[in-house]
Amino acid sequence: MPDIQSMAHAIRFLALDAIRNAGEGHQGVPLGMAEIAATLYANHLKVDPKDPLWPDRDRVVLSNGHGSMLLYALLHLSGCEAVSLDAIKTFRKLGSVCAGHPEIEQHAGIEITTGLLGQGIACAVGMAVAEQRLQAEFGADLVDHRTWAFVGDGCLQEGMGQEAISLVGHLQLGKLTFLWDDNQITDDGATSLSISEDIPARFRAAQWQVIEVDGHDIDAIDAALTSAKSDPRPSLIACRTVIARGIPRLEGQRGGHSAPLTDQDSIEMRAALDWPHPAFHIPDTIYADWDNAMQRGRDAQEAWRTRKQDHPKAQPFDSWHQSPLPAPWPSLPHPNAPTPTIQSSGDVCDQLMDAMPNTLVLCADLEAPTNHKRRRSAFTATDRNGSYVHCGVREHLMGAMACGIAAHGGLQPIAVTYLAFSDYERAAMRMAALMALPVLFVFSHDSIGVGSNGPTHQPIEVLASFRAMPNMRVFRPADAVETAEAWQIALETRNGPSLLALSRQPADQVRQDTDTNRSRSGAYVLSEPSASRALTLIATGTEAGLAIEAQQALEAEGIPTAVVSMPCWELFETQPAAAQTEILGTAPRIAIEAASPFGWTRWLRPQDAFIGMTTFGASATADVLYEHFGITVDRIIEKARELVKSD
Amino acid sequence: MPDIQSMAHAIRFLALDAIRNAGEGHQGVPLGMAEIAATLYANHLKVDPKDPLWPDRDRVVLSNGHGSMLLYALLHLSGCEAVSLDAIKTFRKLGSVCAGHPEIEQHAGIEITTGLLGQGIACAVGMAVAEQRLQAEFGADLVDHRTWAFVGDGCLQEGMGQEAISLVGHLQLGKLTFLWDDNQITDDGATSLSISEDIPARFRAAQWQVIEVDGHDIDAIDAALTSAKSDPRPSLIACRTVIARGIPRLEGQRGGHSAPLTDQDSIEMRAALDWPHPAFHIPDTIYADWDNAMQRGRDAQEAWRTRKQDHPKAQPFDSWHQSPLPAPWPSLPHPNAPTPTIQSSGDVCDQLMDAMPNTLVLCADLEAPTNHKRRRSAFTATDRNGSYVHCGVREHLMGAMACGIAAHGGLQPIAVTYLAFSDYERAAMRMAALMALPVLFVFSHDSIGVGSNGPTHQPIEVLASFRAMPNMRVFRPADAVETAEAWQIALETRNGPSLLALSRQPADQVRQDTDTNRSRSGAYVLSEPSASRALTLIATGTEAGLAIEAQQALEAEGIPTAVVSMPCWELFETQPAAAQTEILGTAPRIAIEAASPFGWTRWLRPQDAFIGMTTFGASATADVLYEHFGITVDRIIEKARELVKSD
Repeated sequence: MPDIQSMAHAIRFLALDAIRNAGEGHQGVPLGMAEIAATLYANHLKVDPKDPLWPDRDRVVLSNGHGSMLLYALLHLSGCEAVSLDAIKTFRKLGSVCAGHPEIEQHAGIEITTGLLGQGIACAVGMAVAEQRLQAEFGADLVDHRTWAFVGDGCLQEGMGQEAISLVGHLQLGKLTFLWDDNQITDDGATSLSISEDIPARFRAAQWQVIEVDGHDIDAIDAALTSAKSDPRPSLIACRTVIARGIPRLEGQRGGHSAPLTDQDSIEMRAALDWPHPAFHIPDTIYADWDNAMQRGRDAQEAWRTRKQDHPKAQPFDSWHQSPLPAPWPSLPHPNAPTPTIQSSGDVCDQLMDAMPNTLVLCADLEAPTNHKRRRSAFTATDRNGSYVHCGVREHLMGAMACGIAAHGGLQPIAVTYLAFSDYERAAMRMAALMALPVLFVFSHDSIGVGSNGPTHQPIEVLASFRAMPNMRVFRPADAVETAEAWQIALETRNGPSLLALSRQPADQVRQDTDTNRSRSGAYVLSEPSASRALTLIATGTEAGLAIEAQQALEAEGIPTAVVSMPCWELFETQPAAAQTEILGTAPRIAIEAASPFGWTRWLRPQDAFIGMTTFGASATADVLYEHFGITVDRIIEKARELVKSD
Repeated sequence: MPDIQSMAHAIRFLALDAIRNAGEGHQGVPLGMAEIAATLYANHLKVDPKDPLWPDRDRVVLSNGHGSMLLYALLHLSGCEAVSLDAIKTFRKLGSVCAGHPEIEQHAGIEITTGLLGQGIACAVGMAVAEQRLQAEFGADLVDHRTWAFVGDGCLQEGMGQEAISLVGHLQLGKLTFLWDDNQITDDGATSLSISEDIPARFRAAQWQVIEVDGHDIDAIDAALTSAKSDPRPSLIACRTVIARGIPRLEGQRGGHSAPLTDQDSIEMRAALDWPHPAFHIPDTIYADWDNAMQRGRDAQEAWRTRKQDHPKAQPFDSWHQSPLPAPWPSLPHPNAPTPTIQSSGDVCDQLMDAMPNTLVLCADLEAPTNHKRRRSAFTATDRNGSYVHCGVREHLMGAMACGIAAHGGLQPIAVTYLAFSDYERAAMRMAALMALPVLFVFSHDSIGVGSNGPTHQPIEVLASFRAMPNMRVFRPADAVETAEAWQIALETRNGPSLLALSRQPADQVRQDTDTNRSRSGAYVLSEPSASRALTLIATGTEAGLAIEAQQALEAEGIPTAVVSMPCWELFETQPAAAQTEILGTAPRIAIEAASPFGWTRWLRPQDAFIGMTTFGASATADVLYEHFGITVDRIIEKARELVKSD
């Protein structure tokens, strides 16, 4: 039997030494959760640290990511080569795999980036969904693993954490376990400053199994972990812990969270825990216990490889994990009449049911306007075959689940809601961009085109706010053809997320050609002028239709006008300057986008003009609003005459 | 006794007729909650519709704002002049007070803008906090009212709704009551698609009183409302309702939410409810019942005016509601050594304790770095005298509470957290901008200056994302002087919110003069060149110190260099073009901001340069990161030489 207490102390001292070496860090979690983590790894976790990318491994998420030294200590002690002692000595230094908060590095056993409170457990929900969906498809011989999340008080106070509790209970994700570090301390002081809730009762209300244990009692923890594995419900193991356990001065104190550690702390902790070893030295017997404990995972990994060798589903299993794109890209029926781009998007999504069976649609109460459900059955507590997850009105959770699914592998997540609600989902979307995960965020109701629901529901600054975000591609396609193109580019992009902003109101069909995906260049001349260019109209989304109409009138007046469609700034930004200039021309420019002008100075010169929104919207029908805010063909024509005259 | 059932039917038919007249709308809520609302107004609510701005009125929040016709019907029937029958006939039309979702118009009885799910109940929490804080200050003779929120399933699924439940229980806001429309239908279909939670148990876990009633049983509702008023705990009245009650075709159905209504629906509802009256006709007897019911509120209002007349606290009560600024503005000690602007901000906030006693600080687990608590005691369940609310790790709720407090009146809300968490709070901040509420959002940890906590915690695109937002002022002050100036401008601004982005790391003291608030112009020449300007450095925040240092080196090289500090784009944007040009000059420009370049083309020409962040940050100390990302004095100098040479 391994000496789990010593295994736990090894975590403690690695954390202490690394934090002292770095000069700063958060000791509260690794010291407080050492027994919990050691027991999990010793007797329950299924991982093979020599093969950190093994698809059927258990997933471990450190949602309380500030306690990152807990994770690094676990990875080091369990034998993950990338987390060497040398790496731990670079904790919190530039370029270290041991960053201040865990940054996704799956080859090093770091499953996902965590640190912003709540994101981790919400990602864990996505991982647990992914496992169940894949198990339904490929069977338990190939897919049968669990998700364990270390969780702090902050994660549970966050709204997204509460959304997670609710949806996990609803979906009965029984292989997901939260290990709650109930240390009763937050950064601001005692948790009692801000919460009086009966947290176990809150989980029980959402149909979880709740087990309350002393978080330093190894036998109790072990029994709780066994119970979590045997109960069909998701489990909360509420671990009553002492923050910074082991440092006499800080145990159970607010300073236990991250107060600077002194030489004296090190001396006193070594004395208190009878640890005579120098800094960064772990006795071989303890390393051996850790190594032996990992044998269970190594065996499981080998058995899995053997099972897979002749498994009839091995080939599709691999294919789903590589997530190849359909070739050729499914062709779409061209609508003859103006069609909302959300509807065209729904058509694409439908076609992908056959061409990319590993797509998984997450949806925040928005089935009707995007049609995604037409061919997709629901993923539910009793049927894991569905490729459509009703996430409820929980946008923030949904975005993070999409990250967790992408990080898990095997599935292509597609998260759907209203664009106005992207503000709720934004922090999770940023995590997708930061982690460079291939998530597709699809939004409907992209502008004042929403109509009478009014300014709360009308995005104005959303496009700009995401164009400002590193590694996020923002698409606002003009019609059905560009919508299909945007889907294709977004799914091809494996090193970051994409956002599709789609219209509720009908979009004129401005493109007929489909031989080349012209959206790839970000912007292109949608309609050439009849003669040497006197004016360029630049439009995105439904405003392309207005531009085409204005072009016809201006050409009739003898003003040769080009229309440039610009579905994606970020792609256009990557074009050489000469190509940009060729497309945008040197003639006066008018940009038309029913959104904030913020950022448009990137493509407009002082002499150019912008037609869009400088205020919030209003409550009226879309037609009335476009007229009211002056986003009209007449206004374009009028402005064009002015510019051409003064040019 | 009033005929409450008929009063309820009057709501139903006004809603039906208005929605049919508009051609679209959401009938589910007004038809489903008609008895609940009528009973509340008939027997419990304390308002005087003839004096909608009476400070001691009960506050009513329609958190399920899509059901706006419920609110408009209530306001009309209770005698609010601004909501005439003619106004109701313009429901959902441009300029109507009866917008698609309620838009704040307090003279018309619309307390707050609602519609984005969860925002309403979170604002209601702020209102309930405001009432208790003001009551502690002025006594129950002047302040003693309740807050009632109509709540839908969506509001409770949202994370911010869950945050509200938790904090309300913790603070024991006993005068806050949620009236939950438990109709078991969302836009996407049955609530059972996405939730299995025992919602009453969830509220009980958070120390609420929960009363479950048939939402169409007037006696049961009445008893529940009485119980809510007498119990010291906050109350959830869980009203089991039938969505779209009264329309045989839609009752209890998904289409009850907002399916288009037909002539036949109108005929059938009139038959079913024995309502022979034509559209928009309410019998006088019913109007009379409504009018009589309002007598209670009118009496209360008159009694309150009488009590106030000779009340010793009448003058400060009025003063708090007018929220005058301190004059002269408190002077601040000038730090000699570089000082974090969060610390300077804490100094200002401390001084305001005396000068603006009606300030109320809301804080999401961030006491330490902003020092706000130094002189402020906590507002708790047992002590309402505190001016510091521990909101816990619940940023989204906190932002909306600030809106609710501002809308309530009498207090100046100041919401504090880390800038990276503004993504969590953003939707509520947008509501403040949309409602033009004077909320001050204070953020610390404004950039990679955060250091080793890494990219999750380092804002990059946040400044741009808020600069893109209409009616939001974004301040990034350079030092202690600009920090005080930003506070002053933000507090003076009564028609919208402001955001302060403050540094964790020390900021050089670049200003000594304090006679004039130079930040008012948004940007100004912080340091003049020694001769005719050859270069302009434009900086915000802590980068002003780098610019000054670079200026000294460049001047020594014979390059006359101006340094422009630009603490607030939005204010600079309002300057005449000539003033802008005079400040920015015609020489080459280099802008320096440790953030995304997005939007900077507004102030930079193609020949100019930007030094900042084009990617996410990393985990290392602030000094190392500034060096790593090339935001250094040397880099400014190098770039300056290039630009001046090619100029």
